[in-house]
Amino acid sequence: MTTIRGVYQSRGFQEIETPALEDISRLTAGQGGENEKLVFQVLKRGEELERALSDGSELSDLGLRFDLTVPLTRFFASNHAKLPRVLKAIQIGPVWRAERPQKGRYRQFLQCDIDILGEASELSELELISASLAALDAIGIRNATIRVNDRRVLAADLLKLGIQDQDKAMIAIDKLDKIGIDGVQEEIAQGYDKETAKKLASWLENAKSAELPQELNWVKSLPDASKVRFDPTLVRGMGYYTGAIFEIEHPESTSSIGGGGRYDNMVGQWSGFSTPAVGISLGIERILDLLPQEATTNNSLVLLIEEDYATALSAQKELIEQGWSVRIERAAKNTKAQLSELQEQGFGSFALLKPGEKLDIRKLG
Amino acid sequence: MTTIRGVYQSRGFQEIETPALEDISRLTAGQGGENEKLVFQVLKRGEELERALSDGSELSDLGLRFDLTVPLTRFFASNHAKLPRVLKAIQIGPVWRAERPQKGRYRQFLQCDIDILGEASELSELELISASLAALDAIGIRNATIRVNDRRVLAADLLKLGIQDQDKAMIAIDKLDKIGIDGVQEEIAQGYDKETAKKLASWLENAKSAELPQELNWVKSLPDASKVRFDPTLVRGMGYYTGAIFEIEHPESTSSIGGGGRYDNMVGQWSGFSTPAVGISLGIERILDLLPQEATTNNSLVLLIEEDYATALSAQKELIEQGWSVRIERAAKNTKAQLSELQEQGFGSFALLKPGEKLDIRKLG
Repeated sequence: MTTIRGVYQSRGFQEIETPALEDISRLTAGQGGENEKLVFQVLKRGEELERALSDGSELSDLGLRFDLTVPLTRFFASNHAKLPRVLKAIQIGPVWRAERPQKGRYRQFLQCDIDILGEASELSELELISASLAALDAIGIRNATIRVNDRRVLAADLLKLGIQDQDKAMIAIDKLDKIGIDGVQEEIAQGYDKETAKKLASWLENAKSAELPQELNWVKSLPDASKVRFDPTLVRGMGYYTGAIFEIEHPESTSSIGGGGRYDNMVGQWSGFSTPAVGISLGIERILDLLPQEATTNNSLVLLIEEDYATALSAQKELIEQGWSVRIERAAKNTKAQLSELQEQGFGSFALLKPGEKLDIRKLG
Repeated sequence: MTTIRGVYQSRGFQEIETPALEDISRLTAGQGGENEKLVFQVLKRGEELERALSDGSELSDLGLRFDLTVPLTRFFASNHAKLPRVLKAIQIGPVWRAERPQKGRYRQFLQCDIDILGEASELSELELISASLAALDAIGIRNATIRVNDRRVLAADLLKLGIQDQDKAMIAIDKLDKIGIDGVQEEIAQGYDKETAKKLASWLENAKSAELPQELNWVKSLPDASKVRFDPTLVRGMGYYTGAIFEIEHPESTSSIGGGGRYDNMVGQWSGFSTPAVGISLGIERILDLLPQEATTNNSLVLLIEEDYATALSAQKELIEQGWSVRIERAAKNTKAQLSELQEQGFGSFALLKPGEKLDIRKLG
């Protein structure tokens, strides 16, 4: 996290913290797509709860955020007078979705977002993608690629296929990875006519070879343009996107490790003024899964001690000053078993503290 | 946070993350004292909610944690087979209490805890206090002091005064800082007889000069013993403490900036085995209030650009490699106003990117 934060800060982003609890009305305002159904709702308290129970009004006044974008825009709407004209924000924090826990999907997970609010040009998209790739690179993830699309391009394509009411179609296309072209075609056939479903399937088949549309011309300005690929079938679930959308992929991860897009209308939902905005989010748990486990650190030492705690604390202090990381442990009766357990935990060295004797540091194992 | 984490890690503590949502039964098990009344309860979902609404059973199955100790002991109880015999844990994360927001008290706040589970001796108290003082020292807070007491000493003192049912008395004494000796005496007189209230008031008056009891003899083993002061009137709200208790103070902070104590019975509440445990918690917001605001950083630069985004991104990359922190901004029509706003935000230098020209970096202001 320190590395990622450092990369973002070196590009002029500033860290902001927003609360985990938001007014339930903002979490169910139609901005979050399917995620709005997954909000953990918080019960009213005290008199308000009693009133709600007796008159049958809403039981909940707050909810746990399902992403960091809704709280950021609410924060921006409330504080814009004190904020820079163009806000470049870093947010690192947990979000919650009431899903059944399974591999790669958690009830609570950590997101690291960067957002640019107040800048209408595609400079924002370019900066966000370029900063995210640099951050991933800095932590050793070099094979990440980004799929990009534009909601307006997708909408125009669907319109050309004769699909007017597009929500259902987008939900189906969003499942392409999971259910394949046939599955999407089947789902579309249920909501629209067979002819349309067939046309859509053929559009999906040709999607891979589609040429970069005018709206995504900015991609060519990226220094890492080879890591970015146009995908006309990219949807992304959130209801709030209005323009460019992105999804970060890695060959060793079955789900995306991040994503984002432009959401020019959201600040206007919470305030009287509208503000252009783009964001990109990294899923920290999925990224951690890609990193190698930490090995034994050479400078970690166990200081085995008897009863003289004062001497133990001052010996620890000295060793830390010499560059060791020092865990104090009371010597067990079976020192051998104790040391082998500590070696398994990753400690590289140990020393036995004996009153009046010089410390003898030895390698473990 | 990075500095504090580093100090704790150099003493052999390992970072652990526990979820923000806990079973409501654990958050209302009588461990958290007054804080249990401040739990944000999360509404059941789907069928379970419908059932609860129709049969009048509990509406809530989960709650937001009010501290990091309950989740840690629950985590330890579930995972102890995979964990070291003695666990030295760091936890950094938000906790929630449904209080009316006011200066120094937030609905959500960040705690940084270290805990030692599985070590019965006072080595744990010594390590935790010594590590916390070192962490505060490392971030530049050198005037912190720690008040210590022992719940057993307090209980014995109250018994000597003839107070058998001690909960009410402890709640009154806990308010000493706010309502003074007279206030405590008054509150005690309501719950007990006047004679007892008078005795208690005289005990409170003599408390400052009380000598260190046998149970707190370990304090003398601290390298920073001068920063630690015995206070027989220290209570701490949490119901779960069983032995030593501590509270960290700073002359410039009206409320404590941290605290903790021994809670030997809590793991046993969630499992069939009991485990000795001690912890200490830093209140991050209150500590941040004590730190000086960051001044202008000398290496922060604004790169004013026109329309050529590709060149802007590669110029930014080069400047970052040279050690600058670089924020890209599109040049406004009124560059002077723009630069003065950026200077206010803390930027030290700027450069105007012109096609084909060498970058000219200038100081702001």
